[in-house]
Amino acid sequence: MEKIFRPKSVAIIGASKERGKIGNILVENLQNNFTTHGKNSGLKIFPVNPKGGKLKGLKVYTSVLEIDTEIDLAVIAVPAKFVNKVVEECAWRDQPIKNIIIISAGFGEIGGEGLKRNRKLEELIKKYKLNILGPNCLGVINATDGLNLSFAKSNVTEGAVGLISQSGAFITAMIDTAEEEQFGFSLIASLGNKLDINENDLLDYYAQDEDTKIIALYLENISNGKKFQTKLKRLTKTKPVIIIKAGNSQKTKEAIQSHTGSMAGEASVVQTAIQDAGGILVENLEDFVTIIKVLNNFQIKRLERARQKDGLAIITNAGGPGVITTDLLEKYKLNLHCFTNKEKKGLKQILPEESSVDNPIDLIGDAQEDRYQKTLEFLLKVKGVRGILAIVTPQAQTPIKKIVEVVAEHNKKASFPIFPIVIGGEAEREAEEIARQRGINNFAFPVVLIRALQKIGSWETKQAINDEKKQVKKTKGAQKTLLSYQETEILAKEFGLNILRAEYPKNGKDLTKIITKLGTPLVMKVDSPNIVHKNAKNGVVTGLKTKEEINREFNRFHKDFPGEKILIQPQVESGLEIILGLKRDPSFGLVLVIGLGGIITEILDEKIILTGRVTANQIEAKLKKSKLYRILKKEKIDTKELIRQAGRLFELGLSDEKIVEVDINPIFLYQDKQPIIVDFKILKSREDQ
Amino acid sequence: MEKIFRPKSVAIIGASKERGKIGNILVENLQNNFTTHGKNSGLKIFPVNPKGGKLKGLKVYTSVLEIDTEIDLAVIAVPAKFVNKVVEECAWRDQPIKNIIIISAGFGEIGGEGLKRNRKLEELIKKYKLNILGPNCLGVINATDGLNLSFAKSNVTEGAVGLISQSGAFITAMIDTAEEEQFGFSLIASLGNKLDINENDLLDYYAQDEDTKIIALYLENISNGKKFQTKLKRLTKTKPVIIIKAGNSQKTKEAIQSHTGSMAGEASVVQTAIQDAGGILVENLEDFVTIIKVLNNFQIKRLERARQKDGLAIITNAGGPGVITTDLLEKYKLNLHCFTNKEKKGLKQILPEESSVDNPIDLIGDAQEDRYQKTLEFLLKVKGVRGILAIVTPQAQTPIKKIVEVVAEHNKKASFPIFPIVIGGEAEREAEEIARQRGINNFAFPVVLIRALQKIGSWETKQAINDEKKQVKKTKGAQKTLLSYQETEILAKEFGLNILRAEYPKNGKDLTKIITKLGTPLVMKVDSPNIVHKNAKNGVVTGLKTKEEINREFNRFHKDFPGEKILIQPQVESGLEIILGLKRDPSFGLVLVIGLGGIITEILDEKIILTGRVTANQIEAKLKKSKLYRILKKEKIDTKELIRQAGRLFELGLSDEKIVEVDINPIFLYQDKQPIIVDFKILKSREDQ
Repeated sequence: MEKIFRPKSVAIIGASKERGKIGNILVENLQNNFTTHGKNSGLKIFPVNPKGGKLKGLKVYTSVLEIDTEIDLAVIAVPAKFVNKVVEECAWRDQPIKNIIIISAGFGEIGGEGLKRNRKLEELIKKYKLNILGPNCLGVINATDGLNLSFAKSNVTEGAVGLISQSGAFITAMIDTAEEEQFGFSLIASLGNKLDINENDLLDYYAQDEDTKIIALYLENISNGKKFQTKLKRLTKTKPVIIIKAGNSQKTKEAIQSHTGSMAGEASVVQTAIQDAGGILVENLEDFVTIIKVLNNFQIKRLERARQKDGLAIITNAGGPGVITTDLLEKYKLNLHCFTNKEKKGLKQILPEESSVDNPIDLIGDAQEDRYQKTLEFLLKVKGVRGILAIVTPQAQTPIKKIVEVVAEHNKKASFPIFPIVIGGEAEREAEEIARQRGINNFAFPVVLIRALQKIGSWETKQAINDEKKQVKKTKGAQKTLLSYQETEILAKEFGLNILRAEYPKNGKDLTKIITKLGTPLVMKVDSPNIVHKNAKNGVVTGLKTKEEINREFNRFHKDFPGEKILIQPQVESGLEIILGLKRDPSFGLVLVIGLGGIITEILDEKIILTGRVTANQIEAKLKKSKLYRILKKEKIDTKELIRQAGRLFELGLSDEKIVEVDINPIFLYQDKQPIIVDFKILKSREDQ
Repeated sequence: MEKIFRPKSVAIIGASKERGKIGNILVENLQNNFTTHGKNSGLKIFPVNPKGGKLKGLKVYTSVLEIDTEIDLAVIAVPAKFVNKVVEECAWRDQPIKNIIIISAGFGEIGGEGLKRNRKLEELIKKYKLNILGPNCLGVINATDGLNLSFAKSNVTEGAVGLISQSGAFITAMIDTAEEEQFGFSLIASLGNKLDINENDLLDYYAQDEDTKIIALYLENISNGKKFQTKLKRLTKTKPVIIIKAGNSQKTKEAIQSHTGSMAGEASVVQTAIQDAGGILVENLEDFVTIIKVLNNFQIKRLERARQKDGLAIITNAGGPGVITTDLLEKYKLNLHCFTNKEKKGLKQILPEESSVDNPIDLIGDAQEDRYQKTLEFLLKVKGVRGILAIVTPQAQTPIKKIVEVVAEHNKKASFPIFPIVIGGEAEREAEEIARQRGINNFAFPVVLIRALQKIGSWETKQAINDEKKQVKKTKGAQKTLLSYQETEILAKEFGLNILRAEYPKNGKDLTKIITKLGTPLVMKVDSPNIVHKNAKNGVVTGLKTKEEINREFNRFHKDFPGEKILIQPQVESGLEIILGLKRDPSFGLVLVIGLGGIITEILDEKIILTGRVTANQIEAKLKKSKLYRILKKEKIDTKELIRQAGRLFELGLSDEKIVEVDINPIFLYQDKQPIIVDFKILKSREDQ
């Protein structure tokens, strides 16, 4: 990866003399060392074009084979149909070029011919052990060293943000935004089709890069969910990672699938995985940009303090906006500092009589910069204040610029962040100008900042989950079989799962024995892998009490479901209905789901989802945070048994990679006895897969 | 009201020569007729100050009594302690001044002395039939006529927005914002303490004002909820009304109460009332401003089309932002247009091969203004397209300004709105500049626009509720009494509510009779208005089967609850648990609540809330939209009975104004039999109130 972001020699294959062409912009960007560090000064550039000649003072080679020196990196921008040929030439050289960025589009994303090219390229990568970024990407930018290996805008602001994006346009938009919003970049990479190098490889490089303090990702799909989660978990311990995961709606899933040829993950699984690993997941650009601004311009270290329990302070020269902001803090679950009587007295001494000295501290409409200054100075010394929102509205005599100066100055001095929130049009513009001169931002609307603070608060506080090492084969598209209840019962018992016993009568004599053994009432079901929805087909009868009823139904079952097995179970008292599920996600591996059953599932979307290597402790920790837990407590049900059964179910899943889906619906929980699994379905991929 | 917004003669009492003082700014603002209409040209201004002399070319009168001509309006800006005296002088004149704006603070909001002043002022209003706005307000601005009767900034952009605010600073911030965001005002009023004139009075005036096309409100409390809802319902049929209702958190409720001396309404009740009446309720300034921008600058009439079912179109030069936007549209439940095959073919003919011709329409990164132009022209002719989001990201060669010109031009031509969404920093600024020149806005982040469109969509489509005419006395602070079950049973039966029967045994003989009459199992409860939480005090025993058990418990009850009545009920089979509640809101009157009972209440916040004059049809309409309805259907329970019982409960509430709260928890619903009310509490205010 070092040779992709920090090459000493680069061949631009497809270099062009025609202005505006990608092959021309690439050479121009590369020649323009845009930082003053000069780290990039020894770079050798080799333009390649079959036409040869000269370009911007450089000799143009007709082929990479013609260049007689070691080359760290090749950037390919020739038409798609020539790409594989050129890649082979790179590999054939005496000093092979192993690191390649393919800008060219026209591969997997266009289908047909593109897919063929894709397969060929995959072979080449394997054969020659190549590292390839792309195809269909924008390239990379090492802003720290002033090295632009992309066809994006040349001058990129240097800074602390490492950006990885599956959309090229997203990168250009962010570069443009950064300049305006006072943040900058260390490394930028465009993923393109992710044929070889993907976000996981890049995360490793960004993790060890000292100039990268904040990592920002735009992803449409995740290449290896489990790996991603493991890396993320490790990474978020030292650096905040902000992620937009697009493609959650049906519409966009289709668009992305047709675009990249790969499935977007199940939204809820991806969301859980990212949040569990401490990633900051956002769903829109406004939050994405605001969080970066806050982290970058108000310093991460200090923000950690603002995230702690106690608390934020609000100062304002206007009642209304103060009230709105206080409402929003409560809504987004951020804590306000509670002033002691002594602190309130202190504030009273420096503020006019009409001022309110509890949060929100109202400085009254005629407040000038001195009143802000005195209040901030006072608050800097108050123990327990971890951050201040300084609201300013333009009233008749309000010196906006001077107040923002005061806020910026105290923000610099303080051990916690102080955010200027100047509301208005002209006033806001003035504030933003001063804020920028001081390297911070003004927030025109409190809600945007508050949403960002809440999201940032979730970072690091989340209990991360260990990664599961086992590699699981993809089962996508495989033929699946439903196990019979009899097979399921055997497997369940092996793993200590309390499945409800069943008897399999063959004739009337068996029936008599079963009635004696189990008592009544009884339940009769058809047990066939071919009949998934038994209820719909009258394949389930409950409440059977007399011998006659049971005989009659037994005969009907034989007639209605010829050749199928029939099972009989005792009818158990209903308990609290819980659903346990297991699913093998193509990207994240085994996923355990615990949810409420019965009528409540209709109205309660919340499910407990666990991924990675699931342990009893993790199940317990997640359960305790859920609404389900409150219900269990209320019903006085011991959670231990549920956790044990869920853990055993997970083990069952681990034991056999062919198990792709398990559905326990319901397991009944009781106050005073062991839980009972009433229905249990296991879906396996076919043996011949 | 006409004389407050359109006076021909104004006395400024407390006019001052000192620059920066309110009494100085008021005269200056009034002299500065800031529109070119000249409607305000004949205005007569009478400065009043005991010192007399001259001010800005005008004679200063020492008292209003000295002025010997008719005066439409007085604006008072003297210290609080002089206000009542000055008001009395206004009233004493031969030609009394009936319309008064009191700018001065120092009344109810400061408590103590201020409350005394308040009471006196109330007396004066009654005695002399005065119309008073304030005290503690900023004044009013009639921007249509260029008349500034406030101490806010002088030049207010003229336009279509009528603003009413309970915060003066909110007004100054909005005036500043408007200038920047291309909208303007017709009328602005600062409510202050609302001692006399309140939002309801102003809504009437704004409703009939032809220049006011959009009404925007900032409120901390609502003066008369029922009146407000009635007016709102009528008003929203012709004009959109956007409302920020602040003061929903515990913290801010306290702040507002201590500030204004009046309670903020129950958040959920206010929310339901506003939304039912077709108001656009928002919770933050960003949404507030964006909705005004969208309504004002993209024309209301055309937006009505954008709100209809089918649908929006997205065009973009960047995949990523297109995908994010599509995700957001789904999340916020806005419809995308589905292109027919013929339409897709048509788009294919004008776009490059690689373009995607389904929503989002991807114009590809190298799109210039001509490609936007061709696509927009095409879309203008597509039937079913009701609005277009035109996304632009700054890529290497993207002519931002020209594209925004194209968008603005087509927006003007189209029968529906076309919104430019230019993402980036520099690019966004360029876009905003062009957009403003064309009188529209650029939206830097799709999510902000989408949230606004969703909120606007709720306007007018809501089923409004009739107002209840009956005026109900306030019960705030009254002593309350809990009725006994016996009293409740009588009342419930009178109104046809299926309350579970109870027997009241006095001795062992009665017990025997009751067992014979009701059978077993039985439930025994202490029935005392003094014991609200019977369960906690062992005042409820269930499952009593034998005569001995019943006797033993009866004796224990006598011992534990000496002198209290004891009741016995049959123990009924549990059904679906529903809670019915009734509450008398000080502002909105009777509020009916229907919710799920049992363990589900722990996890499901949603309740059905009805206010105003509740009818069976309204209950049914609201119920059908709820999750509760899905559960009832699933449990195969007839909703008719529930609706009937709820309706009867409401009638019970209407019958007696002293009933302040009713709690039926639970009423059991069954598939095959009548519902049964198992517990029923009625709270009444005391007779002596």
